[in-house]
Amino acid sequence: MSTADVGPVFTLATGPVGSTPATRAALAQPVLHHTDPGFRALYAETVTLLRSAFGASVDPVIFPGEAVVGIEAAAAALIGPDDVVLNLVSGIYGQSFGRLAGRFAREVIEVETAYNDSVDPADVAEALARRDDVTIVSVVHCETPSGTVNDLDAISQLAAASGALLIVDAVSTFGGMPIDVEHWPGIVIAAPQKALGGTPGLSLLHVSDDAWRHIAANPNAPRGSALSIEGWRDAYRPDRAFPFTPSVSDIYALRSVLQQYLAEGPENAERRHRRAARAVRAGAQALGLSLWADRGALLADTVTAIEMPAGVDEAEVRSVARAESGVMLAGGQGPLRGRVLQIGHMGPAAYPMSPVIAVTALGHALRRLGAKADIGAAVEAALAARDVGDDDHGGPDSTAKTGSEPQ
Amino acid sequence: MSTADVGPVFTLATGPVGSTPATRAALAQPVLHHTDPGFRALYAETVTLLRSAFGASVDPVIFPGEAVVGIEAAAAALIGPDDVVLNLVSGIYGQSFGRLAGRFAREVIEVETAYNDSVDPADVAEALARRDDVTIVSVVHCETPSGTVNDLDAISQLAAASGALLIVDAVSTFGGMPIDVEHWPGIVIAAPQKALGGTPGLSLLHVSDDAWRHIAANPNAPRGSALSIEGWRDAYRPDRAFPFTPSVSDIYALRSVLQQYLAEGPENAERRHRRAARAVRAGAQALGLSLWADRGALLADTVTAIEMPAGVDEAEVRSVARAESGVMLAGGQGPLRGRVLQIGHMGPAAYPMSPVIAVTALGHALRRLGAKADIGAAVEAALAARDVGDDDHGGPDSTAKTGSEPQ
Amino acid sequence: MSTADVGPVFTLATGPVGSTPATRAALAQPVLHHTDPGFRALYAETVTLLRSAFGASVDPVIFPGEAVVGIEAAAAALIGPDDVVLNLVSGIYGQSFGRLAGRFAREVIEVETAYNDSVDPADVAEALARRDDVTIVSVVHCETPSGTVNDLDAISQLAAASGALLIVDAVSTFGGMPIDVEHWPGIVIAAPQKALGGTPGLSLLHVSDDAWRHIAANPNAPRGSALSIEGWRDAYRPDRAFPFTPSVSDIYALRSVLQQYLAEGPENAERRHRRAARAVRAGAQALGLSLWADRGALLADTVTAIEMPAGVDEAEVRSVARAESGVMLAGGQGPLRGRVLQIGHMGPAAYPMSPVIAVTALGHALRRLGAKADIGAAVEAALAARDVGDDDHGGPDSTAKTGSEPQ
Amino acid sequence: MSTADVGPVFTLATGPVGSTPATRAALAQPVLHHTDPGFRALYAETVTLLRSAFGASVDPVIFPGEAVVGIEAAAAALIGPDDVVLNLVSGIYGQSFGRLAGRFAREVIEVETAYNDSVDPADVAEALARRDDVTIVSVVHCETPSGTVNDLDAISQLAAASGALLIVDAVSTFGGMPIDVEHWPGIVIAAPQKALGGTPGLSLLHVSDDAWRHIAANPNAPRGSALSIEGWRDAYRPDRAFPFTPSVSDIYALRSVLQQYLAEGPENAERRHRRAARAVRAGAQALGLSLWADRGALLADTVTAIEMPAGVDEAEVRSVARAESGVMLAGGQGPLRGRVLQIGHMGPAAYPMSPVIAVTALGHALRRLGAKADIGAAVEAALAARDVGDDDHGGPDSTAKTGSEPQ
Repeated sequence: MSTADVGPVFTLATGPVGSTPATRAALAQPVLHHTDPGFRALYAETVTLLRSAFGASVDPVIFPGEAVVGIEAAAAALIGPDDVVLNLVSGIYGQSFGRLAGRFAREVIEVETAYNDSVDPADVAEALARRDDVTIVSVVHCETPSGTVNDLDAISQLAAASGALLIVDAVSTFGGMPIDVEHWPGIVIAAPQKALGGTPGLSLLHVSDDAWRHIAANPNAPRGSALSIEGWRDAYRPDRAFPFTPSVSDIYALRSVLQQYLAEGPENAERRHRRAARAVRAGAQALGLSLWADRGALLADTVTAIEMPAGVDEAEVRSVARAESGVMLAGGQGPLRGRVLQIGHMGPAAYPMSPVIAVTALGHALRRLGAKADIGAAVEAALAARDVGDDDHGGPDSTAKTGSEPQ
Repeated sequence: MSTADVGPVFTLATGPVGSTPATRAALAQPVLHHTDPGFRALYAETVTLLRSAFGASVDPVIFPGEAVVGIEAAAAALIGPDDVVLNLVSGIYGQSFGRLAGRFAREVIEVETAYNDSVDPADVAEALARRDDVTIVSVVHCETPSGTVNDLDAISQLAAASGALLIVDAVSTFGGMPIDVEHWPGIVIAAPQKALGGTPGLSLLHVSDDAWRHIAANPNAPRGSALSIEGWRDAYRPDRAFPFTPSVSDIYALRSVLQQYLAEGPENAERRHRRAARAVRAGAQALGLSLWADRGALLADTVTAIEMPAGVDEAEVRSVARAESGVMLAGGQGPLRGRVLQIGHMGPAAYPMSPVIAVTALGHALRRLGAKADIGAAVEAALAARDVGDDDHGGPDSTAKTGSEPQ
Repeated sequence: MSTADVGPVFTLATGPVGSTPATRAALAQPVLHHTDPGFRALYAETVTLLRSAFGASVDPVIFPGEAVVGIEAAAAALIGPDDVVLNLVSGIYGQSFGRLAGRFAREVIEVETAYNDSVDPADVAEALARRDDVTIVSVVHCETPSGTVNDLDAISQLAAASGALLIVDAVSTFGGMPIDVEHWPGIVIAAPQKALGGTPGLSLLHVSDDAWRHIAANPNAPRGSALSIEGWRDAYRPDRAFPFTPSVSDIYALRSVLQQYLAEGPENAERRHRRAARAVRAGAQALGLSLWADRGALLADTVTAIEMPAGVDEAEVRSVARAESGVMLAGGQGPLRGRVLQIGHMGPAAYPMSPVIAVTALGHALRRLGAKADIGAAVEAALAARDVGDDDHGGPDSTAKTGSEPQ
Repeated sequence: MSTADVGPVFTLATGPVGSTPATRAALAQPVLHHTDPGFRALYAETVTLLRSAFGASVDPVIFPGEAVVGIEAAAAALIGPDDVVLNLVSGIYGQSFGRLAGRFAREVIEVETAYNDSVDPADVAEALARRDDVTIVSVVHCETPSGTVNDLDAISQLAAASGALLIVDAVSTFGGMPIDVEHWPGIVIAAPQKALGGTPGLSLLHVSDDAWRHIAANPNAPRGSALSIEGWRDAYRPDRAFPFTPSVSDIYALRSVLQQYLAEGPENAERRHRRAARAVRAGAQALGLSLWADRGALLADTVTAIEMPAGVDEAEVRSVARAESGVMLAGGQGPLRGRVLQIGHMGPAAYPMSPVIAVTALGHALRRLGAKADIGAAVEAALAARDVGDDDHGGPDSTAKTGSEPQ
């Protein structure tokens, strides 16, 4: 059977995660000149929408460049030659940020945990107590390859108490799980192509007033460069100009997904992600698979990392799922390559049918590759876990691995 | 009259320049995951299309980032601490490149001419003779704010003869005027949102084998950074991965505009741009306006810079043209701000009616602001100049200011 | 020069007249099943929007079938074997309606005027006085091929006074000129693809309560047929079903154009059409052409019929305008074929630049065919006539040929 | 949970059945004037594509009007006052055609079978033997509400042998099951919104030369009416005009779906429909439900009719499936209302995941309404039945109820 027979593609990966008809309609709008008054107004409106979505009291920055670019730009801006960075590592992205911070900081120290676990706030407290010269704490909210989150509430309080600024990679949580930028002093980096369901190509930055001051005092912060975030700070104001041409169509899409997100309501969006997460986890386990995350880890509502049975290559599983079911999963990252794949359940990939589609395609691919998989049981478990949450209120179990998961 | 009364926007600016229905249909396609086999195949096809459009014997690089980003990345990659750069300056962009090169080079020397003129190849020859340690010659093909081009045929021969590599900003010519990357040793930077009629957000790089070697030998070339072009060199190959997520929708649009360009044929596209250029120049002059370019300058076929009458602010002219005619012009750059505006006649802004729309809106705005403008004469002149070229064969007069222009 | 060189098509014809980006975005939405609750709600909303646009106190009927189908269905429903129809003829469409009415009526009598004139209400009064058994008066509001309108205010009063029902073809006026369905007792037929700028394929019917009663009493009204309008009367109600599947995408487009129309406001839309009409008329006359309409005729704000110079075939003019300027005009109807073409200035063809584009393309084509045409003068005249109306208030001159037209 | 939570709508109904991205891109193209040379060429190309898709040696007719309109128009054209029609009735649509034929024919005689069965060709043979004055045999290929097909191969041979013309409603088979218009003398009516995945609003007619002669001889065939098919016969020819404006956007969509169908290949499309059909039937039965079709009936590959358990209203089931799973099913027709619903598995609703989505949503809704449903077993059965066919070659079992169905 050729790929052409498969028809629609269900993108249940870790971003991009597909797009709604409204988003695609936005993308199809005429490409205006970036100084066109129509575009200028639309851009300013988008900044306002993003501020609402962030729940922030300061205007955010729309930075032209995919999240990886935005993270580099944020790090380069915030981390100066006098800074000591405490980098929290619970996965591949945290590890990678440590290397990046090392290019700018006086010193980078790390608290590391296993890549299937979450950072223990007690370890953070201890590190901050040991080194009172830490000026910046860096942390990844959701380690996408691991499907785990770090406890930002606790970590941000510790950072605030020690007078350090935070730099938070909230790329794969924003839009699907609560973020609290007002209480996270520093910089938070998000992106449109994850739980918002937008296009890749932009970074969405919350920068607190303290962080702006820290940047202004950093002699090495990029200026007059493509990596400078300062030039984009006020670019939406009528009396300012864009440092260079923003990606017009990606801005159209961003405005649309923010409108969709705010119309749905953050709480509804979060509940929708919780339902999908519960269903995917239960379904994967009913297929006989193990979640990659350790029992003690905090689980993400936007992505689930799943360990393959011995002898089964996750890349082959994904290939078969795509070719025979039209379902696109994610995986293949760093040390987890070959062993762990991810089901993204964020944005347009987090609707009632998404988990059913995901576990069916996954189970079907496993069988093709000779593994056992009880697809019927997986679908039943996914539905049961999904629906049990119809009356939930986002309680404490929503990011906990144990408790509400039917097993 | 409110803006809403104006209806369709005719974007006759300097990029973005609007978009065709085919381009918008491409943008509206579902946002696939960047590792989706469908997207991977489409991306590889796009690289091949771009190579054809470049007329190149090596595969080009699609770099994620608007042209300004791509130019910075190219400069950072090519220009190392041992390089002496001869920077040719005939306008704002050339001047700006000198500052950029200064961040990376051992030394930057410049040949400068008035911003309404083209660089004289004899001056380049002299500079290269004087300084045989020049390793890189940098030049802007079309100085958009000035509407002028530099003589790349002559300059590239001089560079080749002296063993220097070129770094050419061909952003606002590629797709509308001939470029000859095979004979321009080094790096050529183009972009989709100019004469191709695509979206902003990508840079299109031709890098010769010699240039790749030079980059490899540059200890300071960005690596492991958002500004690294090396990571994108082979990213289209089945056995490679993208350094980070490319802007999926912008790639869709790029593929579409390259298909449209190749279907039209480069020669037809160039002739279309010549026709529009002749018409706009003649129309502007019949309005009683002066071209910004000096008589000796080589004129661009993609953009015309026009000086406003004394006492008339180009920003106001553009504002009125947009508000009352729905026509978006460009202007307001650097030292020319307030005095010189540009009519873009590139890509979807270079069709038979485009010059008529441009000069009518321009004339109408001038009148509103109290200046005299013979719109009827301008339309007639534009039509006459446009149509005289139906039998042209792209002869030497096509970029010359004198000769074929009806005045 | 091939057609491919021409680029964008400016559809300045008599319907369809192009489409806005918003309309095309609506068309691109997923095709829902017609019983889908999402589509049912959207359909009901569309009925409400149309009622607002009609300014009616009763719900309108969206009939699946282009205007010609809707007119036949309306006639078949309203005109029974006992009816005497007074058919007013001032052009091709009125003439054609007489033949149609003859299939259903006991007798059809006619008041006819020259096809470049409007029906004189005095003649209508006389006919109604002569024949007090007239039960239905049929009239075309705008005779598209002639560019003329009939005086519906006067005619509707006469019909009302005589107790006759009206059947009005308002297809090419609704959305661009005032209609007053509340004072036009009977049936008014409109369509989306004219001054609303929608797609062809639907008829929009206002049917008064009296008319519904007349239909109910007509033993020959189509029932259980594709031509039955009664089945669609209440089809939008939750407890009813569609007689058959409506054209889902055309409904999407209709909803969108109604939203656009109501957001602009009927008065603004009408003023926009008046401006375009004045400009086109003045421009055509400055090209040395005569309007087809007689001096005494009432002129349409949505379309202008223009007589070609002796020896020039209007079909050839249109062909050249399309091939060389990308401008699509209309013409070629009935006895006017070869002599008279129409410029449509309705919907998306009635914006400030539209008349300039129209008269330039028209003049250019005339020249190609050997006729003289002062395009510069025409553009100037069009602009002058257009702008003189910026302060108009829709006074009596708005549909009068004389007076405000600069000549 | 509100409808808004449900996200994407999976339209697994009986037409429209959703639309592919390519189809939606086609719909979003600018609305050209119907006489535009670009549209004329596109229309003519569409006629050629349809002829290929029909596998016909004569040009087909694209008739403006949904299938119900096209059937009425075809009947009105073909059936004259001298005709005796043998109408074969195996469901609601056949019954309805009998009433329609009665308006035009001298006499209508019928062969009727139970609505969950297929017409027995022996009964047809007997009827034709009894009445040698039958001139037209009318038959519905697929009775959508029943999910059954009639044996057109046998019936068409009988009709041919007796010299009668056929009138075949192939609306819900064309594109998903083989049709053989070349051996079906007479008229075959199809439509875009079923197995082709297009939009409603057009009828696609194959009319044999004999049928055209019969129409020409019918004094009552509609002429000069919206219901006349003769006017559209040659409308695509350069020297002809459209009787009235066709639905431009629906033609764009039709061209696109025909291109998609021919690119996939009729055999691949048919196999895809067979796979989906097997899967849906098996899944429904594993849910504990009965197919509506009798064991002896020939089953459609495009739609499956399923009987609800006692006490469960199919309308409620569909409502829940739509509200909680985003899945739109069909049902509610005539005497089957309340008891029997249909899953459409045609066009974009006949891909590998479609049956899984359908049976999961169906099972889930049944449970909500208090019925038992083993969803896990249903998904497993659907997958098993779907995949068993990967090596099938369209043998005789493909439309047979028994044999290949896992039970």
